[in-house]
Amino acid sequence: MKQFIWPLRVYWEDTDAGGIVFYANYLKFFERARTEWFRSLGYSQHVLKAETGCMFIVSHTQLKYSHPAMLDDELHISAKVTDVGGASLVIEQTASKPSPHTQEPLILCEGTIKIAWVQVGTLKPSRIPKDIIQRLI
Amino acid sequence: MKQFIWPLRVYWEDTDAGGIVFYANYLKFFERARTEWFRSLGYSQHVLKAETGCMFIVSHTQLKYSHPAMLDDELHISAKVTDVGGASLVIEQTASKPSPHTQEPLILCEGTIKIAWVQVGTLKPSRIPKDIIQRLI
Amino acid sequence: MKQFIWPLRVYWEDTDAGGIVFYANYLKFFERARTEWFRSLGYSQHVLKAETGCMFIVSHTQLKYSHPAMLDDELHISAKVTDVGGASLVIEQTASKPSPHTQEPLILCEGTIKIAWVQVGTLKPSRIPKDIIQRLI
Amino acid sequence: MKQFIWPLRVYWEDTDAGGIVFYANYLKFFERARTEWFRSLGYSQHVLKAETGCMFIVSHTQLKYSHPAMLDDELHISAKVTDVGGASLVIEQTASKPSPHTQEPLILCEGTIKIAWVQVGTLKPSRIPKDIIQRLI
Repeated sequence: MKQFIWPLRVYWEDTDAGGIVFYANYLKFFERARTEWFRSLGYSQHVLKAETGCMFIVSHTQLKYSHPAMLDDELHISAKVTDVGGASLVIEQTASKPSPHTQEPLILCEGTIKIAWVQVGTLKPSRIPKDIIQRLI
Repeated sequence: MKQFIWPLRVYWEDTDAGGIVFYANYLKFFERARTEWFRSLGYSQHVLKAETGCMFIVSHTQLKYSHPAMLDDELHISAKVTDVGGASLVIEQTASKPSPHTQEPLILCEGTIKIAWVQVGTLKPSRIPKDIIQRLI
Repeated sequence: MKQFIWPLRVYWEDTDAGGIVFYANYLKFFERARTEWFRSLGYSQHVLKAETGCMFIVSHTQLKYSHPAMLDDELHISAKVTDVGGASLVIEQTASKPSPHTQEPLILCEGTIKIAWVQVGTLKPSRIPKDIIQRLI
Repeated sequence: MKQFIWPLRVYWEDTDAGGIVFYANYLKFFERARTEWFRSLGYSQHVLKAETGCMFIVSHTQLKYSHPAMLDDELHISAKVTDVGGASLVIEQTASKPSPHTQEPLILCEGTIKIAWVQVGTLKPSRIPKDIIQRLI
């Protein structure tokens, strides 16, 4: 499966009084990476909506936090499809940063995000267009 | 002019790595108080929209920060109208907390928020209904 | 197991351009309920930290979204402990609202949040004090 | 005076149920630009703090909203110093996007942000180091 990487910087807005990135914000980081991935494939969200009458919505999220991210950290957010259903996709994502101790990046947070392809008005599940799947996997 | 007070609690989500409430969040706190003020007068936002085709939008904000708020603080958010225009209102607001040193509350942040009454589709200014103004002032 | 319920209101700040509550914000809602639950039992976070040198951090989150919440909705957030480890707790939570169709509340989002009891400086796991567990379950 | 420009993209997290960027978020956008400006001059925030025992905090903000930003918009955030005090700076900022109608960018939001240079522990005002001012203006 293809993997997409999106870099982002941690700002004050992302942190909490523990001095680290507030854990809910990884869902934002992961979404930015998915959005940029789709955009890099030629799919901007309002164009998709206009052309197909459908959109992706998040139906499940699962996050595991291993190490904290700090103010000013530059993180790498990854995304790859790990399961393809008729009307849904499972995407595995990580937030990592270069470790000071080794050459290996340090994984801070791992997520599994399930998104469903639904009709805009009714939110009813719909079959994901083949060309979208082909470009993602 | 009438004054409305709304209490709220500071949670982790509101703080930043400085250990204090992130300054942008006072705009959220002030809006919660305005919303609850309007609701207490019988104006919920979607009812107003449905009945009048108009809504309030924020056109100007001005904030002055004097002291920080901390995790777990219980704040009092005040709101009162200080100027009434044909299609806009100026609302002065404060965030304060009981001072440990005196009986007087400690003002942490003062804001001046200008809101405009506009048509929902076009965002064109519209005359604020008299009954709304009468209940607010 | 005991269940705690915390009511909260949906404001503009909680919504996104889809017209519904942004899905990451349920993690904030769930945390507010856990915080108020602990506070209702006499445990405020900075007192716990000062007395024990330890604190709870979130180590895993799992959310399932069933129905959207809208601006102005009043939600009920529930929390109950479903598993007790030496240094961690699993808490199941829901966000629900009264359904227009039935008397039963409509569950919008279900979450499973695992929190770990760790030493403040090192973030090393530590044994959760018995009195905390006894009050929660 | 020098002007710094930082591009950023509007994501779901930035929008509200009005279908536009939530107005409080421009304070976040403006801060990202200031942070990147300082970083581009060699001043990262924790290095400054370690070397001088001081930091910048926001003391006043003033925002005027002219046009809405939408999901997927790419915005340009500008920043320039317009006033230099002994212990504070006034920074004027704009958020703009290319207009579909003309070649001129459309200014969506204008802000005036006053930041104070304070000692980390006490938050007492302190004289801004000359080299910082020289690089900014």
